[in-house]
Amino acid sequence: MTVKTGEDALLGKIARQFAHTSRTVAAAFPVGIGDDAAIYAPRAGCETILTCDWFLEGTHFLRDKHPADAVGWKCLARAISDVAAMGGVPRCFLLSLALPETHLGPWLDAFLGGLRRASQRFHCALAGGDTTKRRDILINITIIGEVPTGKAVLRRRARPGDILYVSGRLGEAERGLRLLESRRGLAGEKDRTLRRHLYPHPRLALGSWLREKRLATAMMDLSDGLSSDLPRLCLASGVGARIEASRLPAVQVSADGQTREISPIQLALHGGDDYELLFAVPRRKTKFVPRSLKGVRLTAIGEITRRREIVLAEPGGREVPLKPGGWDPFRHSKEKRQR
Amino acid sequence: MTVKTGEDALLGKIARQFAHTSRTVAAAFPVGIGDDAAIYAPRAGCETILTCDWFLEGTHFLRDKHPADAVGWKCLARAISDVAAMGGVPRCFLLSLALPETHLGPWLDAFLGGLRRASQRFHCALAGGDTTKRRDILINITIIGEVPTGKAVLRRRARPGDILYVSGRLGEAERGLRLLESRRGLAGEKDRTLRRHLYPHPRLALGSWLREKRLATAMMDLSDGLSSDLPRLCLASGVGARIEASRLPAVQVSADGQTREISPIQLALHGGDDYELLFAVPRRKTKFVPRSLKGVRLTAIGEITRRREIVLAEPGGREVPLKPGGWDPFRHSKEKRQR
Repeated sequence: MTVKTGEDALLGKIARQFAHTSRTVAAAFPVGIGDDAAIYAPRAGCETILTCDWFLEGTHFLRDKHPADAVGWKCLARAISDVAAMGGVPRCFLLSLALPETHLGPWLDAFLGGLRRASQRFHCALAGGDTTKRRDILINITIIGEVPTGKAVLRRRARPGDILYVSGRLGEAERGLRLLESRRGLAGEKDRTLRRHLYPHPRLALGSWLREKRLATAMMDLSDGLSSDLPRLCLASGVGARIEASRLPAVQVSADGQTREISPIQLALHGGDDYELLFAVPRRKTKFVPRSLKGVRLTAIGEITRRREIVLAEPGGREVPLKPGGWDPFRHSKEKRQR
Repeated sequence: MTVKTGEDALLGKIARQFAHTSRTVAAAFPVGIGDDAAIYAPRAGCETILTCDWFLEGTHFLRDKHPADAVGWKCLARAISDVAAMGGVPRCFLLSLALPETHLGPWLDAFLGGLRRASQRFHCALAGGDTTKRRDILINITIIGEVPTGKAVLRRRARPGDILYVSGRLGEAERGLRLLESRRGLAGEKDRTLRRHLYPHPRLALGSWLREKRLATAMMDLSDGLSSDLPRLCLASGVGARIEASRLPAVQVSADGQTREISPIQLALHGGDDYELLFAVPRRKTKFVPRSLKGVRLTAIGEITRRREIVLAEPGGREVPLKPGGWDPFRHSKEKRQR
């Protein structure tokens, strides 16, 4: 039958790349790929987490800078980060992909390779999607996750006096992006300084651990940068925050000539794409927060305040208002500034 | 707090437009809009239906032809159609929206108005989404629906001898599109001949009824056109089909000078965007299929065959292979040909 037209052929390629699903996964997806929609069997006692994420050429990545493999990995990993930020577990994803005809060969293969590796690494199966042709490469990822009913860690329950923590180091991905911008051609996938920007890891283990231990009153992931994301957590909770600059787990900047001009503190405050977790812990529970969890450092950076403003205590002791300086597509006029 | 940056302001506008949710809806969404992700409470005994759909300027609609209100309605209605095609019920949706800064005012208001009306009409609540800035208007809709466990009507169980049915009239939306293309400027929203193209209605009641009565062995919605969609149902079921041209419930084309050149049969075979249902019913059960259901006509158009090919019986009695002539973005070279 002449059913294998262009779009059907593309769907077939995607389905083949993701054919090797485990039995556990198959049980949750009684229908598989290729019907009008996907069917997902939610587990008893769980609520479903739903989140979607744009990943657009020119806005979030550049065709001539970002390897297709990294585009595949990152579009899924960053979307999964929102599930980690609720203390949830990802289950499956929908892939919406628009591609130029020129990218149906090696580019698509490498993209699907990176996507599949992330899918396997984070136990998040491909459930379905939609494809079309387009001049630009457009990606939209929907993640379906789960969390025990009523146990999701939201942004809205931080209370004055709670201690604010972040995981990992802040500003590393931004530093990787700046290195990428300063170089010519495609990024080398094995370049360690770039990997934090190209291959982020959502903090799933930490998010689940904090949810299980009931340590966090509020949590979110840092995608746009601390100075842009922290106000969102504070707004949702109806509180403010005071951050100490000296405590920020900033990226270590070597004097390599390429990045000397960027202050580590500025990178930590405003750099995006780290996908670390920001969370608030009641003071009496801070003794249960370890210095690191499974190799990921946890750092107290300040506290939640009653007064609804975000304040940065500078090393000298001076306190200044912290203005959002992270990523906002509607404030960044240069559309080519990729993230 | 200076938290209301560009993207936050856009999110606020969307949240306000969809603030009036019923208590039933609120119970299913314990968190509401504005956290890292949405939380959805699946109902016991139900599986979750997941589907996503591109709706892109230039590919699926034109900024200067399609009213923003119709863009809002249609992007949701056509995505919901995939849930109808499984016999399911939509519960909520995620909206991914990329817009130029010039479209954050009246265009966005009208778009959200149409989207909200469709949301209310089809009982499908906004659960969350993602927004960004972009030259082109890009929309991606994810629908979350539900169906009693194990009862979804798939594409894969049609058997030789089953009678093929379609709902409604085929080719009406394509005729509306051609009228739209032949005119200048924005389409009038009240033009009846255009409404089938601008404001499609997914066949939710019919899909659920067929699922409840266990009448259909296989079902799908007609989005790309019968000649492109029917081979997909047949491929999934491992069968073929024989369609009778004389039975097709084709659009009635008046001799108005603008559309005289299009054959109603060609419109019915290859016209897309109708969002009618195509379903197979075992011969012994056809006596339970009414001529119409809630005002929507149901027409037997042919039967499922063992031989794996799609055949069209022409009015004169001649049988010819039916080739996919509907919508395929990878076969249609003119990207501006909107759908």
